[in-house]
Amino acid sequence: MKMIQFWFDFASTYSYPAAMQIRQLKDEYRFSLHPFLLGGIFQKQGLNDSPFNAYPVKGQYMWRDLERICQKLDLKFHRPVLFPQNGLLAARIACQYASAPWIFDFICSVYQANFVQNLDIGQPETISQILQNMQLDCNDIIMTSTTDTAKQTLKQNGMIAESLHIFGAPSFVVENELFWGQDRLQDAIDWSQR
Amino acid sequence: MKMIQFWFDFASTYSYPAAMQIRQLKDEYRFSLHPFLLGGIFQKQGLNDSPFNAYPVKGQYMWRDLERICQKLDLKFHRPVLFPQNGLLAARIACQYASAPWIFDFICSVYQANFVQNLDIGQPETISQILQNMQLDCNDIIMTSTTDTAKQTLKQNGMIAESLHIFGAPSFVVENELFWGQDRLQDAIDWSQR
Repeated sequence: MKMIQFWFDFASTYSYPAAMQIRQLKDEYRFSLHPFLLGGIFQKQGLNDSPFNAYPVKGQYMWRDLERICQKLDLKFHRPVLFPQNGLLAARIACQYASAPWIFDFICSVYQANFVQNLDIGQPETISQILQNMQLDCNDIIMTSTTDTAKQTLKQNGMIAESLHIFGAPSFVVENELFWGQDRLQDAIDWSQR
Repeated sequence: MKMIQFWFDFASTYSYPAAMQIRQLKDEYRFSLHPFLLGGIFQKQGLNDSPFNAYPVKGQYMWRDLERICQKLDLKFHRPVLFPQNGLLAARIACQYASAPWIFDFICSVYQANFVQNLDIGQPETISQILQNMQLDCNDIIMTSTTDTAKQTLKQNGMIAESLHIFGAPSFVVENELFWGQDRLQDAIDWSQR
């Protein structure tokens, strides 16, 4: 069974259902976690905002499509007032603690804060509260995740994403095969079983 | 069983497998055919070319993704040298003859010319040959499809597409619900059965 790389950005809407599905499937298949920031990649495409804001007709569709996907997967969803949100701190933590036993729960809690609870995940207080709710030492985790080395690791992920020709999130990579979009998760799983 | 509107552009890559699937499903569900030209819609988004050419990294992915989809659906596929092609004449014919008994075969043949046989569907000769192969009177059909009234009908389709907030192809509309992409065909079918 091949490894499925899960590339995600905490600001990315379709990454929310993907993360929730992957938490369910994590013991059945092999997933590795690769948080990154899409902003840099969008900038290279000449976009200074999410494509869903730059092309409002596409954005309007995305929110409805996401709502339908969440209904189908029986996931709560509440369109956030603020979009896209700043996922930098959460991404640094996910990067630093990618192999911690609590990491899937942390990732899902951040997505739920963003896309269910209408909280601002760019505020350190939101992230601290999530860690505290999980009975974790939030001060220690945040400190460890904001050292220069930790910051560098996340930047590196961005460079690796680019070298893998990733242009959106969520993306899945199995060996040299790239799959883009939550709707390609099953294809990525199938590929990992070949 | 509700009507599923199938909105397609002959230049659109993912519309090829969608059209092939719909021909298979046309007696099982209710489909109506709505050819239109995406170019005008892209221009309003500030694009003078296909987004797959404007963003090469996305284009590179699309060709591989399309190849995988065709493999899965057991459809032939050959990446065309020319992309996007000019689907104007084919779209006018599909518009004018949307309820002809041969229309699904015509549509599929045009997509196969584009995405399997590496023919230039912008050349009237290619379209004539397709019609002749179907034992149809190509001169009469082309003449009828290029009158001012016929031209106007296709333009009108473009305006309707825009009013339905369509921004890409293929798209499916069931009542007021919009679905974008070949990978949403099943969702559109499910919606039509509700």
